Amino acid sequence: MKLTILGSSSATPYLDRHPSSQVLNVNDQLYLIDCGEGTLFRLNNFRIKKNKIKAIFISHLHGDHYYGLMGLLTTMSMHEKSDELIIVSPPRLKDIIDLQCEISKTVIRFPIRYIETSMEYSEVYKDSNITVHTVPLCHKIDTCGFIFDKNFPTKRILKEKIEELKLSPHEVSQIISQGFSVKDGQNVTIECISEDNVTKKTYAYLTDTRVDDSYQIYIQNLDLLYHESTFLHADIKRAEETKHSTAKEAAEVAKAVAPKKLLIGHFSARYIDLMPLLHEAQNIFPNTELAIEGLTFEF
Amino acid sequence: MKLTILGSSSATPYLDRHPSSQVLNVNDQLYLIDCGEGTLFRLNNFRIKKNKIKAIFISHLHGDHYYGLMGLLTTMSMHEKSDELIIVSPPRLKDIIDLQCEISKTVIRFPIRYIETSMEYSEVYKDSNITVHTVPLCHKIDTCGFIFDKNFPTKRILKEKIEELKLSPHEVSQIISQGFSVKDGQNVTIECISEDNVTKKTYAYLTDTRVDDSYQIYIQNLDLLYHESTFLHADIKRAEETKHSTAKEAAEVAKAVAPKKLLIGHFSARYIDLMPLLHEAQNIFPNTELAIEGLTFEF
Repeated sequence: MKLTILGSSSATPYLDRHPSSQVLNVNDQLYLIDCGEGTLFRLNNFRIKKNKIKAIFISHLHGDHYYGLMGLLTTMSMHEKSDELIIVSPPRLKDIIDLQCEISKTVIRFPIRYIETSMEYSEVYKDSNITVHTVPLCHKIDTCGFIFDKNFPTKRILKEKIEELKLSPHEVSQIISQGFSVKDGQNVTIECISEDNVTKKTYAYLTDTRVDDSYQIYIQNLDLLYHESTFLHADIKRAEETKHSTAKEAAEVAKAVAPKKLLIGHFSARYIDLMPLLHEAQNIFPNTELAIEGLTFEF
Repeated sequence: MKLTILGSSSATPYLDRHPSSQVLNVNDQLYLIDCGEGTLFRLNNFRIKKNKIKAIFISHLHGDHYYGLMGLLTTMSMHEKSDELIIVSPPRLKDIIDLQCEISKTVIRFPIRYIETSMEYSEVYKDSNITVHTVPLCHKIDTCGFIFDKNFPTKRILKEKIEELKLSPHEVSQIISQGFSVKDGQNVTIECISEDNVTKKTYAYLTDTRVDDSYQIYIQNLDLLYHESTFLHADIKRAEETKHSTAKEAAEVAKAVAPKKLLIGHFSARYIDLMPLLHEAQNIFPNTELAIEGLTFEF
């Protein structure tokens, strides 16, 4: 899984920081997460193929998370996208899109299937690549985070089978690398010493939200956690008023649920330099990185 | 009057070209003309103060001319704009804005007065700075160009008064520079040898449109004409299908109505290099320039 940051600002864009958007690449299929104004330009800048986007996930209907959607949809249509696009979002985004299409006499020439989120933990999307669950967050309007799970089929080696067949370490390594080994004139295949297993990679995208105990149960064992960190903890009052989180609070969530890595983003325009936000989080959860636009995180 | 180009692309943005938007500065009051996606970022980039925008003029409701409006309005509101904003546009833009505010529970904290355009030549806006008329254009949906007139109070010197008062050229030049001269012991003021007059500066913004004789009668005696030139004339077929103009056609309009300068813009993403568009227009109307983003034209 590869996650590319397209936008990392909070509601007011600042210089080279743009409103929220990310693209998750799983087996060369793209999943767009939020779509703030300018997402189309950022996809162009980073040479990401718009028409490979299979589904779009919108956390909530504050403008900095969806104002780029109409421009993206109409451009995809002009660029001859023809296969279905799925849009997962809170209710009534369809009304906003339909009204604008009606008034401007715009026809989007590919089918859109809308899936509505509700304020509960539930599976909202599944394809051969990924399964996505919503996580209800705590913001000014109904907002859901998303958990993206990818299951990889793998094999689990069975120690008891190795002992039973009296295989040497060299023979085991041959079976793993070639798929088989010859033992006493018999083929011993990987199937003889393993069972099917599934390995999971998991990414959670949580924005916008006050830090809240309620969602921590859903975000255990993550490979990557993106948690909004709009403010420094010195500005906690503003975070409380606007229902956002501080870098310290995001790191405390990470400390509690122990993802492999924490990404922080949704930075307020009041901060020119983002390093104080990073350091504040790293003091609590060392493996934290800034969601800088254009960066790609592989996991 | 100073015109700054914020966006010059047609519907599909290309690299550093963004959808249509311009800002007209008249006596330090700002008038925004169209507001494609990313207008907010461009205003930031060029350090233009958003909250000095007094009125916004939207030519038509294709997205590349208004998708930046919601982001701009909500940001102006967050930046504590409090005085009235006037939005001149085709009907139902208010519906689009109101629906999004309702669904996202967003309150725009300054009053907006909507003025609806209709498909006729008429005065739609007037303040102490400027008067604006609509010009019906020929596009896929109802579209109006805008003519911005600024009246400067001036004085017209009356030759017969100079002869009557037997003033020497030196005395006349003294009156013009100082406001008066002494002739035979009498004060002769500027008022004695002049009458009030009005000088006009006029800018016309015409996009999107097929070239059409119908609007030429409204755009005589311009200081500056912006005429869309989405295509090269080699692509006239595409221009006809999409109801746009070619650079050659825009220049032919300019040749017919003789503005002091022609600006061409709304460039298709198919052209990486814009010089062929410029040369095509200059062959017919030499004083043509490209509407390059960030450039300011004073007139």
